[in-house]
Amino acid sequence: MRILVCNVNTTEDMTESIGAQARAVASPGTEIVPLTPAFGPDSCEGNYESYLAAIAVMETVRAYPEPFDAVVQAGYGEHGREGLQELLDVPVVDITEAAASTAMYLGHKYSVVTTLDRAVPLIEDRLKLAGLTDRLASVRASGLAVLDLERDPDAAVKAIVEQSARAVEDDRAEVICLGCGGMAGLADEVEARTGVPVVDGVAAAVTVAESLVRMGLSTSKVRTYAPPRPKQFKNWPPNKG
Amino acid sequence: MRILVCNVNTTEDMTESIGAQARAVASPGTEIVPLTPAFGPDSCEGNYESYLAAIAVMETVRAYPEPFDAVVQAGYGEHGREGLQELLDVPVVDITEAAASTAMYLGHKYSVVTTLDRAVPLIEDRLKLAGLTDRLASVRASGLAVLDLERDPDAAVKAIVEQSARAVEDDRAEVICLGCGGMAGLADEVEARTGVPVVDGVAAAVTVAESLVRMGLSTSKVRTYAPPRPKQFKNWPPNKG
Amino acid sequence: MRILVCNVNTTEDMTESIGAQARAVASPGTEIVPLTPAFGPDSCEGNYESYLAAIAVMETVRAYPEPFDAVVQAGYGEHGREGLQELLDVPVVDITEAAASTAMYLGHKYSVVTTLDRAVPLIEDRLKLAGLTDRLASVRASGLAVLDLERDPDAAVKAIVEQSARAVEDDRAEVICLGCGGMAGLADEVEARTGVPVVDGVAAAVTVAESLVRMGLSTSKVRTYAPPRPKQFKNWPPNKG
Amino acid sequence: MRILVCNVNTTEDMTESIGAQARAVASPGTEIVPLTPAFGPDSCEGNYESYLAAIAVMETVRAYPEPFDAVVQAGYGEHGREGLQELLDVPVVDITEAAASTAMYLGHKYSVVTTLDRAVPLIEDRLKLAGLTDRLASVRASGLAVLDLERDPDAAVKAIVEQSARAVEDDRAEVICLGCGGMAGLADEVEARTGVPVVDGVAAAVTVAESLVRMGLSTSKVRTYAPPRPKQFKNWPPNKG
Amino acid sequence: MRILVCNVNTTEDMTESIGAQARAVASPGTEIVPLTPAFGPDSCEGNYESYLAAIAVMETVRAYPEPFDAVVQAGYGEHGREGLQELLDVPVVDITEAAASTAMYLGHKYSVVTTLDRAVPLIEDRLKLAGLTDRLASVRASGLAVLDLERDPDAAVKAIVEQSARAVEDDRAEVICLGCGGMAGLADEVEARTGVPVVDGVAAAVTVAESLVRMGLSTSKVRTYAPPRPKQFKNWPPNKG
Amino acid sequence: MRILVCNVNTTEDMTESIGAQARAVASPGTEIVPLTPAFGPDSCEGNYESYLAAIAVMETVRAYPEPFDAVVQAGYGEHGREGLQELLDVPVVDITEAAASTAMYLGHKYSVVTTLDRAVPLIEDRLKLAGLTDRLASVRASGLAVLDLERDPDAAVKAIVEQSARAVEDDRAEVICLGCGGMAGLADEVEARTGVPVVDGVAAAVTVAESLVRMGLSTSKVRTYAPPRPKQFKNWPPNKG
Repeated sequence: MRILVCNVNTTEDMTESIGAQARAVASPGTEIVPLTPAFGPDSCEGNYESYLAAIAVMETVRAYPEPFDAVVQAGYGEHGREGLQELLDVPVVDITEAAASTAMYLGHKYSVVTTLDRAVPLIEDRLKLAGLTDRLASVRASGLAVLDLERDPDAAVKAIVEQSARAVEDDRAEVICLGCGGMAGLADEVEARTGVPVVDGVAAAVTVAESLVRMGLSTSKVRTYAPPRPKQFKNWPPNKG
Repeated sequence: MRILVCNVNTTEDMTESIGAQARAVASPGTEIVPLTPAFGPDSCEGNYESYLAAIAVMETVRAYPEPFDAVVQAGYGEHGREGLQELLDVPVVDITEAAASTAMYLGHKYSVVTTLDRAVPLIEDRLKLAGLTDRLASVRASGLAVLDLERDPDAAVKAIVEQSARAVEDDRAEVICLGCGGMAGLADEVEARTGVPVVDGVAAAVTVAESLVRMGLSTSKVRTYAPPRPKQFKNWPPNKG
Repeated sequence: MRILVCNVNTTEDMTESIGAQARAVASPGTEIVPLTPAFGPDSCEGNYESYLAAIAVMETVRAYPEPFDAVVQAGYGEHGREGLQELLDVPVVDITEAAASTAMYLGHKYSVVTTLDRAVPLIEDRLKLAGLTDRLASVRASGLAVLDLERDPDAAVKAIVEQSARAVEDDRAEVICLGCGGMAGLADEVEARTGVPVVDGVAAAVTVAESLVRMGLSTSKVRTYAPPRPKQFKNWPPNKG
Repeated sequence: MRILVCNVNTTEDMTESIGAQARAVASPGTEIVPLTPAFGPDSCEGNYESYLAAIAVMETVRAYPEPFDAVVQAGYGEHGREGLQELLDVPVVDITEAAASTAMYLGHKYSVVTTLDRAVPLIEDRLKLAGLTDRLASVRASGLAVLDLERDPDAAVKAIVEQSARAVEDDRAEVICLGCGGMAGLADEVEARTGVPVVDGVAAAVTVAESLVRMGLSTSKVRTYAPPRPKQFKNWPPNKG
Repeated sequence: MRILVCNVNTTEDMTESIGAQARAVASPGTEIVPLTPAFGPDSCEGNYESYLAAIAVMETVRAYPEPFDAVVQAGYGEHGREGLQELLDVPVVDITEAAASTAMYLGHKYSVVTTLDRAVPLIEDRLKLAGLTDRLASVRASGLAVLDLERDPDAAVKAIVEQSARAVEDDRAEVICLGCGGMAGLADEVEARTGVPVVDGVAAAVTVAESLVRMGLSTSKVRTYAPPRPKQFKNWPPNKG
Repeated sequence: MRILVCNVNTTEDMTESIGAQARAVASPGTEIVPLTPAFGPDSCEGNYESYLAAIAVMETVRAYPEPFDAVVQAGYGEHGREGLQELLDVPVVDITEAAASTAMYLGHKYSVVTTLDRAVPLIEDRLKLAGLTDRLASVRASGLAVLDLERDPDAAVKAIVEQSARAVEDDRAEVICLGCGGMAGLADEVEARTGVPVVDGVAAAVTVAESLVRMGLSTSKVRTYAPPRPKQFKNWPPNKG
């Protein structure tokens, strides 16, 4: 099967790192296609960028010329998954939700450790809408910007480990979710240093996407995610403007 | 003061009707500027369109060349208010939230009567994020598409009254919110026929916007709605692409 | 229009200060009538006093001899708004609720900073009943008694600023509500020192009351707030006893 | 021990019936003292009356000249229990809460069947504040006014049984609470006809009060229910006015 | 009346101490029968042991050869109460729930102080299912193992008092529940040192059981707790294996 | 990898059917080992049986003589998963939770259709503890006993389809979970007749178990699911009694 794994920002290095993380967990026979949005910001660290990325991911995915079996949206705490579900017949898996659902199999409560303080409310809101906050202990910020993660992985691991330890001790988390697509690949190291399971959202989402395909399950089209109704669009898509 | 009232779809007639509703309630001395997004669908009836409209509203509002004191986003159950709050220093008021908050001053529970069945979960989700569902009795669909509202106002009123009556009787609502920007102007008629207060979101939002300006209050910039950080944008905005 | 702004305690100085705060935000053409209850305690700092004040406010307001368009109940975290809504045909706005609703337009989460520790549960309970706790970060006590606020405004501001800073830092509030009718007038100073929007309940409630009147909206009479049924009263009102 | 059982309205017949119900369940050695408020309405069917009754109960109880060991407030869904807890050192038990807590030992979910439709939100609100709604299936109205209950007990039983049956069947209740102090004495008959346990609030509250006294437990005075602070009262109590 | 008070572990000393605590609060005429499970662990400090104890308590209680009027399950945060309710016609009271319900009559919020950190989630889960968490301030661990409580009561009291003080100060509890059947008898000492009411679950449950019997109330058999349907059992009970 | 799929009842036919369902979805290279508990009831339809099955599953799984990589507990709405997590180092997946989590990727709300009415509260409680009720539309009973499912699959499908349709129409579900391990194999037929995705818990749980193993994730041992502490057991296990 073929799974599109779509980064939410336009930084190609991050797309590659996400793709590598996806391939590392994919089953034999699963082709991972990493995608970079055709437009948008080089990192998403707030609502404006997240909304823009949402549209960029949707347009990029539906412009993909080959058939595919599932889509993973590889941005943590970002908007847009619902729109993809309307546009596509194949399953759509958001890494924020896949990480949280996976964590819930592993411990009584889980925490998310993310980048900047301002990302915390976005992640809380996505988990709230997804109905996954009941066992959420906390969302904590490491203080690192998205693009810092790749620039200085050692500092990233250190900051993430520190917040993870506080999540376990103070917030009573028993599992940690790495709260940024750009943290792909740090899970083992963080797990080794904290002693609790650490969930990488990209890996989790790829296994969920594979599982849904294997079970023959896809998005319900009965109400919320029915295909868009016919519309007149003004100045959109841009190249028709 | 000057308040921008931004429609979320590109149907000019609807912008005008929203503008008229806004002016009808505005204080003397308040200038209402109705805006139509520079791009996007002619009506929003699902997540894809709503996300696209969110970005269109943001780009349109921030391209507005004159100073203004507040913005009303005039789409019911649509995305994007959080992004506008980041981009602007002036207050931003969403009609979904203004209608609900207003309704809560008037009765023990309130219901929303909207257009199509598929709009119901979108409205529920926006109210959930806004923390306004605790006294929400129900969100009900009249079965009318957005553009049908203007085409046949009598049928619209009839369908809305029918669902409103069921909301009061079965769901124990005591107040009704008209759940579509395109229902602007129907409140009096629906109120006359149902016997309960009927809140128009555009009117409610305009009064809230005026009040915030008068009190000298605007969006907190301390965390969630801090201005966007500097970014590199690829192929955006479109005309720079 | 004429708005009655009713203090909940019998301290005339506080009534005056509340009236001044109301007038400062009222529109031209709005007459503010500050009222002091005909009986009751000189300050409300607990349930007994709050219940007594609730009845005193109801009897005082309905004994007011002239027509009026709306009522603001100017006690933070006090009982009684529901009773006024039954007795009157005009809108009734409680400052606790108006402040919270207003704060929710300005930030992701809000906190209330009030007087004594014992007032905290009363405020929490009123907000819980009003369905406004979902985005409440905390209710914090400054440790000052109600009547201390007027005696030493500098100490009041200092204590309020200290708790506000902790609310922003520790509880992740982005907006502060001043949790006592007696804090009217301190908002600007607290805002200047904390860097987040500070909402004064009296001001917020006056703008809400004006808005409701302007929109022609008043309390739903369909169930909870229907007029009281005819009753035989024993020894009440007191002067008939 | 001596337990004051205070009716909330001034109808002496109802006080007697409540007293009889209390005595029927009291232990040997427990003296039940039924009290009628010194002032207030002949029945409570709304917020104004409920607030007035709250103050009337407080003043009546604290004017009681003899020592006592506990107080039962015998109004269903009425205000005021918190004020009594401040004024007294002995335990205070509200029949609304005692009935609900008792019901929760007996089935997975419980419903309350009360008098008029307008009483439903009051009861819901009291249970919400008490933190007892998580297993509440519904609050249903029989359509009978409070004073009708004594005038036509057969019609009362019939209407209560009908709503109880719907609560069990439609709302999945497994236990019924009789939601009015004036329903004292109807439990056996309703239980016989519905086949589910039926809890009388007065009986439940008397057993709770006795139990608290026997365990030497009373209201915590550490914060919410600390004794009122010293105050100046204007025109209160009435006879000093 | 006869009340079976069943310990959940097989430590006879603890059964005796629980029995003594039950007798101390029982009414004259109530016979307390302390029971030790016929099989299982010497203390319950986790889910495996708790599940085993649940079955052991059920089998032990239903093998009891004499008639009885009620059962108290004397393990804090343990499984099994629902099974006993199916098997028996008489009321079943769990000490976790009785303590919490009792605490809720005494203060605005309550905390539970238990033994080991690992017991905290079990207690939280039982209270969550029971619908009693809305006013739960916290569950705190003293760090003592169950069997340490009897070995060194002075250290137990000290550790419990320390956590209780933090619950009152930091978590805003106003009442403390002793969160282990093995803490029976420590309530007075902890109350003396903390200044807030301290609830012993065994005492609370005995009074609740007596009250239910006195009111003629028992478990609803209409749905959740209907008697088990006829089954074929393989290798169970063990002695038939 | 080897996954133990443990039935909760002692009906061998059902174990086989569960095993077949598990194998149908397992990856090449995954060995499915269906297990029947060594003791217990032939079907679980209530709390007593569920608690007994919980212990039987735990004892059966830990007595399994070969190494294994994960365990699926194949009972819908049954107790015991937490105990297995303590006893084992490998991942444990409950079909109730796996089905719900899977459904949440596919639609806005989901419902569960189960067997008897009395099973509904058990399933609700398990989902509540798992924190998966926020998007649960309803749990509905088909009225069929567990063992009827295998006896008359046509009647089973018909009854399940009927309740599924009502869940979609009345409760606004968009996905259906088959709420009984014995319904394994009916998903395709129900999906064909209802037009919404239908999730089989056994299939879902097997894919989750495989995914966890593939990602190298297992139960957190830091608190709730730490290995049991050393204990003295009386008369347990039975053959040592």
